[in-house]
Amino acid sequence: MDEFELIQSFFINSKNQTFSEQKNITLGIGDDAAVFELTAGKQLVTCVDTLVAGVHFPEDGSAADIAYKSLAVNLSDLAAMGASLHSFTLSLTLPEKDELWLKSFSDSLFELANQHRLVLVGGDMSRGPLSVSIQLNGVVDAGKFLRRDAAKENDLICVTGHLGLAALGLQEYKKGKFKSQSAQLRFLRPEARLEFALGLYDLGVRCAIDISDGLLSEIGHLCRASKLSAKIDTGNLLVHQDLQQLSSIDARELMLSGGDDYELCFAVSESALSAVEQWAQELALPLSVIGGFQKQGNTMIYEQSGAPVAVAGYQHF
Amino acid sequence: MDEFELIQSFFINSKNQTFSEQKNITLGIGDDAAVFELTAGKQLVTCVDTLVAGVHFPEDGSAADIAYKSLAVNLSDLAAMGASLHSFTLSLTLPEKDELWLKSFSDSLFELANQHRLVLVGGDMSRGPLSVSIQLNGVVDAGKFLRRDAAKENDLICVTGHLGLAALGLQEYKKGKFKSQSAQLRFLRPEARLEFALGLYDLGVRCAIDISDGLLSEIGHLCRASKLSAKIDTGNLLVHQDLQQLSSIDARELMLSGGDDYELCFAVSESALSAVEQWAQELALPLSVIGGFQKQGNTMIYEQSGAPVAVAGYQHF
Repeated sequence: MDEFELIQSFFINSKNQTFSEQKNITLGIGDDAAVFELTAGKQLVTCVDTLVAGVHFPEDGSAADIAYKSLAVNLSDLAAMGASLHSFTLSLTLPEKDELWLKSFSDSLFELANQHRLVLVGGDMSRGPLSVSIQLNGVVDAGKFLRRDAAKENDLICVTGHLGLAALGLQEYKKGKFKSQSAQLRFLRPEARLEFALGLYDLGVRCAIDISDGLLSEIGHLCRASKLSAKIDTGNLLVHQDLQQLSSIDARELMLSGGDDYELCFAVSESALSAVEQWAQELALPLSVIGGFQKQGNTMIYEQSGAPVAVAGYQHF
Repeated sequence: MDEFELIQSFFINSKNQTFSEQKNITLGIGDDAAVFELTAGKQLVTCVDTLVAGVHFPEDGSAADIAYKSLAVNLSDLAAMGASLHSFTLSLTLPEKDELWLKSFSDSLFELANQHRLVLVGGDMSRGPLSVSIQLNGVVDAGKFLRRDAAKENDLICVTGHLGLAALGLQEYKKGKFKSQSAQLRFLRPEARLEFALGLYDLGVRCAIDISDGLLSEIGHLCRASKLSAKIDTGNLLVHQDLQQLSSIDARELMLSGGDDYELCFAVSESALSAVEQWAQELALPLSVIGGFQKQGNTMIYEQSGAPVAVAGYQHF
């Protein structure tokens, strides 16, 4: 198959395109660009994330895992906005033509995309070092989205799920064997908190971020954007049982600075907290309240004791 | 500077953001995603293209040329749709932190973006083999766009400008010295036919494609999409003076199969031709009519003599 046949075979001839009509997509994949319109009163929410072999996923990762994670990290960005999913584009750079690899990549990509009725509307394929760039479109009712700069003084800081699992997965992967199934799953197949996030705006939440580079780094982003400092009690974080085998210092490090968990961190007023907690409970999603935002202070994040916390998170440079 | 400071310094603190308000961009670069809305009656037109070092641009290309071309090839896709420009996202993968390189890249990128009041609304930066992925958003009045599958029997095939210059530029680059300034410019700094394309729909044109992989390859796309064959007289192509030094066989090869020219190829009815020619003349844009679409035939493209033309164009795989 030549380049165009590969694209036709693995990306256009997919059941995925059956969702096009529901999404008002006038022109989908296969032209110079895609064309669609938004329902009146809706806003477009758009993000992009590129995953590079050896950086964001193991060089020897399976095509299915790579496809899944490339889409999932973008789903997590739209979860952090409280947006519904609409469509996506894919830029795939491959070192060589490998039809088996492409079939496995495409199957996994569309399994996740179809689960969310998310339509592939365009993209390109190039020869080069393996990387996957996905750009994702979502929609919100106009103005109803979550942003980094909307935390208010005295808002509480909430975190979904158990942190540190993906970082533990990465450690175990480097040692050659996954001991924790939960860590392996989180590392290879992170799950964006889309459903939970969709309910947050109506429960009064205005400020959220997804945890991709480590909790402290993300709280730092919220503080900078909202011009506040944060006081946190890391003892309130839920510790997953598979992290309990580690020393408390190691576990703390993974939970505070480990990347790739794709849980949500958000600000909530005290009065809105119980409704949010109930919503999390309905979805069987663990939730912890780990601190609050405040105006005072010269640094960004403080321990409960008042000691400043050094922020470390994943940095490419 | 760390990763976030680099992004802040070279991509957020740019004069580019001053266009945000004009574009109804509620939330621009710096959050998990961007949020914007379309004016009533408009449709979004979106495309993406990734450029990889050593494939789409020379490994030793200047940061300014790489930035320019990465945006320009996407501009050309939106030109082929007849769309106005709105906003873009950037995924930049870099082997190392190099602030001088980044400054030069950012200056060149925003020079071209600002020229078109095009707003950077998001993106990411990763460490890895050099590549640039740009996803571009445009708008059209609902339904008023150009597509590949809208050519009609007896429509004429038009081509803008002089073809083969970029391919000549690539040849000269490989030999170590640019002899033709026009070829060098086209190879490094292609110019999308945006203004011309914007007028085409109202002049009756419905079908267009940009010439990125070679003329024959693009006519092949139009034929397949529109379920027609094409009969062309390649003698009608305008030959740039810098190609006249080549043998006619070499010049023909560059014009028919050379990539990266980013001129437009489109279908126009006989009755609409003179208005389109006048529009091209107003913009001082050369235009040639090189053939027409027909229903008969088992292959896609025929010479005027009736002989089938073998289609060759750039293929990654």
